[in-house]
Amino acid sequence: MFVHTRTITIEWGDCDPAGIVFYPRYFAMFDASTAALFAAALGYNKHAMLKRFDAIGFPMVDTGARFLVPSKYGDVVTIDTTVTKFGRTSFEIRHNLMRGDVLAIEAHEKRVWAARDPENPEQIKGVPIPTEVIAALSANN
Amino acid sequence: MFVHTRTITIEWGDCDPAGIVFYPRYFAMFDASTAALFAAALGYNKHAMLKRFDAIGFPMVDTGARFLVPSKYGDVVTIDTTVTKFGRTSFEIRHNLMRGDVLAIEAHEKRVWAARDPENPEQIKGVPIPTEVIAALSANN
Amino acid sequence: MFVHTRTITIEWGDCDPAGIVFYPRYFAMFDASTAALFAAALGYNKHAMLKRFDAIGFPMVDTGARFLVPSKYGDVVTIDTTVTKFGRTSFEIRHNLMRGDVLAIEAHEKRVWAARDPENPEQIKGVPIPTEVIAALSANN
Amino acid sequence: MFVHTRTITIEWGDCDPAGIVFYPRYFAMFDASTAALFAAALGYNKHAMLKRFDAIGFPMVDTGARFLVPSKYGDVVTIDTTVTKFGRTSFEIRHNLMRGDVLAIEAHEKRVWAARDPENPEQIKGVPIPTEVIAALSANN
Repeated sequence: MFVHTRTITIEWGDCDPAGIVFYPRYFAMFDASTAALFAAALGYNKHAMLKRFDAIGFPMVDTGARFLVPSKYGDVVTIDTTVTKFGRTSFEIRHNLMRGDVLAIEAHEKRVWAARDPENPEQIKGVPIPTEVIAALSANN
Repeated sequence: MFVHTRTITIEWGDCDPAGIVFYPRYFAMFDASTAALFAAALGYNKHAMLKRFDAIGFPMVDTGARFLVPSKYGDVVTIDTTVTKFGRTSFEIRHNLMRGDVLAIEAHEKRVWAARDPENPEQIKGVPIPTEVIAALSANN
Repeated sequence: MFVHTRTITIEWGDCDPAGIVFYPRYFAMFDASTAALFAAALGYNKHAMLKRFDAIGFPMVDTGARFLVPSKYGDVVTIDTTVTKFGRTSFEIRHNLMRGDVLAIEAHEKRVWAARDPENPEQIKGVPIPTEVIAALSANN
Repeated sequence: MFVHTRTITIEWGDCDPAGIVFYPRYFAMFDASTAALFAAALGYNKHAMLKRFDAIGFPMVDTGARFLVPSKYGDVVTIDTTVTKFGRTSFEIRHNLMRGDVLAIEAHEKRVWAARDPENPEQIKGVPIPTEVIAALSANN
């Protein structure tokens, strides 16, 4: 599987009065890592990808994270992201947030590939993941 | 167990280009709901609580959520929050986010009651949850 | 002019390692206050308003704030919001964030009423503010 | 004066239902740019800087921004940041957010160098900016 790694500096505004990252901020980082994984594997960014496949996004169905080691502002962390499973309309992602060699957070996601419902454009519905997307994400980098 | 319910209006800034809530925002709402649960049960807010017990907060150990129904800006939702389990230094929380009678999200948390490590004030460590806190959260409202 | 007042509890996640509100969070509060002003004056929320007038939003042109008194988590503040000026396609807003009787922040906004450009739906352009909107916001409450 | 430039990719979660950046997110980017300017000029990050000088941060006194060109997710922007003025306890910053050669946002900040009030550690007060800090930021890079 294709693996994407991002390096992130923890900012002052990511942190709470205890001086550590306010955990919802990690989910925003993971969301950006999933988008970056797709962009790296496909060679174009999420905006171009959604236009190309007439999709609306890949909304979250289920996510969770275990927080093993806290981080504070100024810390530099890396996030390793990869697809762990492809279904017909859904896929699963794993993120490992590392501080150096130490696993600080492990997170998983299940998302659905979604488009506007042609019968009701106010609604979003899951549609089959394009084979080009599956192929690109399944290749080793 | 004590149950706390908050009503929240989904704001424009909570939502993403697909027009639905950017899911990390839900975790911020849940974090505020956990704080509101403690405040409602104890009768004073998180700031007063942490001062009273010389604690630094209750950092997240493990959290997850299943997203069943999306919400968009202008939607009004309620979040029902309760403790599901008390350990010695940790506790577990469940949030049900409702759109009317429909369960839209179910989320769970495991947190640790934490204080500054007296031997190393840069570090945070889990300490026993005060019995007054357990008693207040365990009572029915 | 119509004035709208919202009461807000400062949350843990709004605050930074200095223990006070991370100021970008105030701008998110002000954005929600502007939406709430329109909803209160018109009697329907931003989602319904944008659909009714085929608008895309009211993007910010210019904003600024003076921070006179900091707030910390658990503090309860109120925000008084009103239109201070209507142009043809733009309008100006003032927010006063109060801690009790003390003015803690004063902020101003200039926004433009915007729609998709019919000749290029990827672009957003300013269009005249509907007279119904001006009338509702100009009335005293 | 020392100038620091950061390159930022606009993320999905930075954007609102109109598909453009939710403007409070820009202020979070600017805050990180100010911290990065200090880190680049001084050679150590904000955490180390605050410890070294026994400071609590540099809270915002006054900020504002003019939004000339919107950005959407996937866009790559740069932010040029520099100090424009040093007072005794306060300083002023300018950020220019560029999309290529086009000035998309210009923002200004006035901040105060702050420490815990020794007579009341719950309070924050302005103190003189260390001369080492002024020297580093005033040098050309």
